[in-house]
Amino acid sequence: MAAFADLAEIARLRVWDGVAARVVGGTGLTLAFIELEPSSIVPEHSHPHEQIGVCVSGSLSFTVDREERDIGPGGTWEIPGGVPHEVRVGPDGASVIEAWSPHRDDWDALETLEQAPPPWPAS
Amino acid sequence: MAAFADLAEIARLRVWDGVAARVVGGTGLTLAFIELEPSSIVPEHSHPHEQIGVCVSGSLSFTVDREERDIGPGGTWEIPGGVPHEVRVGPDGASVIEAWSPHRDDWDALETLEQAPPPWPAS
Repeated sequence: MAAFADLAEIARLRVWDGVAARVVGGTGLTLAFIELEPSSIVPEHSHPHEQIGVCVSGSLSFTVDREERDIGPGGTWEIPGGVPHEVRVGPDGASVIEAWSPHRDDWDALETLEQAPPPWPAS
Repeated sequence: MAAFADLAEIARLRVWDGVAARVVGGTGLTLAFIELEPSSIVPEHSHPHEQIGVCVSGSLSFTVDREERDIGPGGTWEIPGGVPHEVRVGPDGASVIEAWSPHRDDWDALETLEQAPPPWPAS
């Protein structure tokens, strides 16, 4: 009934250039562990899914519906469905954890990247 | 439209004895940052909400529908709605991040605990 997995076993998916995600998918929600390369950019986009996240390490500048915020470790965000948002990653890259509801069915088509040790948490 | 908050600003709620959560709530999902005291126990319970989580630090033993698993940093779990689960926390305590869908409306009634610095991430 339950699924257990270690982050290191989970495939890395290419979400954007320089942005890789390990996904733990459910039925009604998706939880993802995301690595963003230094100075990478998530271009403005929107989706019907509600999105909540936290910065684990590094820094990023989040723009949500024209409101821009610099975010470091421990910073959280909550984005209603349908609201445009973009991210500019700081010079040291960033690791974030994000959850979406409903499930990100659209991510089923993402390309699998070469496996690599998760940057987080330190083992 | 968006909400930004630092973990350190978010109230700590009492979920169980020895278990405190900082919640970033959405409409259709809930994301929570949970601190579990050493040797604390989350007694067996179930809820209609689907639940996905990851261990950030420490250790715990998760029993989901009679399947028991020892989990350390980087370990993840996915629990369908309605499935009984319980947690026994290791001797050093644990920090976990969990997401539920739908939103945990039932948590609106939780007691607020004394504020304390978040154990994670290191600032």
